Amino acid sequence: MLIIGEKINSSIASVAGAIERQDKEFIQGLAVAQAKAGADVIDVNAGAFLEREGELLPWLVEIVQEAVALPLCIDSPSPQALQRALAVCRRKAIVNSISLERDRYESILPLVKASGAAVMALCMDDRGIPATAAERLAVARRLVGRLSDDGLKPADIYVDVMAQPIGTDGQAGRVALDTVAAVRSALPGVHISCGLSNVSFGLPRRRLLNQAFAVAMATAGMDTMFIDPLDERMMALLSAAKALLGVDEYCGGYLGAYRAGRLG
Amino acid sequence: MLIIGEKINSSIASVAGAIERQDKEFIQGLAVAQAKAGADVIDVNAGAFLEREGELLPWLVEIVQEAVALPLCIDSPSPQALQRALAVCRRKAIVNSISLERDRYESILPLVKASGAAVMALCMDDRGIPATAAERLAVARRLVGRLSDDGLKPADIYVDVMAQPIGTDGQAGRVALDTVAAVRSALPGVHISCGLSNVSFGLPRRRLLNQAFAVAMATAGMDTMFIDPLDERMMALLSAAKALLGVDEYCGGYLGAYRAGRLG
Repeated sequence: MLIIGEKINSSIASVAGAIERQDKEFIQGLAVAQAKAGADVIDVNAGAFLEREGELLPWLVEIVQEAVALPLCIDSPSPQALQRALAVCRRKAIVNSISLERDRYESILPLVKASGAAVMALCMDDRGIPATAAERLAVARRLVGRLSDDGLKPADIYVDVMAQPIGTDGQAGRVALDTVAAVRSALPGVHISCGLSNVSFGLPRRRLLNQAFAVAMATAGMDTMFIDPLDERMMALLSAAKALLGVDEYCGGYLGAYRAGRLG
Repeated sequence: MLIIGEKINSSIASVAGAIERQDKEFIQGLAVAQAKAGADVIDVNAGAFLEREGELLPWLVEIVQEAVALPLCIDSPSPQALQRALAVCRRKAIVNSISLERDRYESILPLVKASGAAVMALCMDDRGIPATAAERLAVARRLVGRLSDDGLKPADIYVDVMAQPIGTDGQAGRVALDTVAAVRSALPGVHISCGLSNVSFGLPRRRLLNQAFAVAMATAGMDTMFIDPLDERMMALLSAAKALLGVDEYCGGYLGAYRAGRLG
């Protein structure tokens, strides 16, 4: 199970403020805290800055990799910003993200190829996000097929099943879970991820919903957790989930987390 | 999702003490507290008293149904104790439990039939508990088939998938989850349950493991939760899980629990 720390994101006001004033210490502190809490990959996003993103995203990459020895997930819809960020990235990155949208595919793919990065592959095309798990699987099959034809290995593809808010569509969680199970069964070599916290948008006690959803999605077969690793309860539940799902030999990770005082 | 409150069990020392001294107030307090916390069914067990069980189990039934207007799950391996308990039970009960063990089946079935009760059906036979999900499904098929031939409706059968401790077998959680998914797919009309807390036996932070396992098992298709409803975090996670699994229309149950202050 791969943990991607989601905290360095310009959609969070305190982070946007720190990026704005180039507060290196604040950003690096978030990177180190996430690494200490168990993140395997650190996501960086400066999307809120629009035309300044091309300058701020590579700055984030440089200061984060100065602070932690972890790979980065470079999060932008902008080919220009991605290109500049990838140019300064020292480790193999995950580009976040590509999709079957024609313009996006054609502008992002060359950057992924040229940098040797892995890629988040969103289950959507020019018609948007499909409503059903079967349709999302169909998009995932086409997208993974195309990426494979273009030379990416399945292990470098992270299929994002596009979790939507249950507050506006009561079946949104079910559809995401069913998509995970379908992709896991049909495309066994790829990783599966999603922006987990979308599911709780607009509802109270979002952390509780995100925690339950993480355990449910892991049970369905999702292996890449895009989460806040500073949420101790989340990390404890995922440690328990790994032991329960049989992917933590002799419960060694769980017992280690217990001894380290990480299970609450 | 049906919540069976597991607290009135003579394997818990404080409960055994209360049964021993016929402390009606203590037992009734546990029944009321579980009902208030959201239990749909109250389990009663006096199995630790061996030869006195035939007298103490019906006493538990009488005092619990005096305190709460809920159905009971009557938990005993003894046909004699079950018979006496069922004789004083005023609502339709769940008999806990029958299995494909020959003596057990033949001694318990007539009691279930005569009382019109539902029944917990354990995935085991005279050879014990099968190691794999496929074998447990095979036992479940034979047991449900036999119970159906003997006149029980699928809706009155609660298949218990027999969760075993992950502390002694790292794949025990995985096997239980896979059995749930297999039974849900092959025998759609029956309920699915298990003694959830077995899974964490011998490990630290058992509640955390039980909470994660409950969410995982619900995701796999288990609909009957044999749990401690006084574990507020467990109940909050299950409320979240129902909303996420699409079985809580408009998140009404979740929002109601939030307004009632039950989500922590």
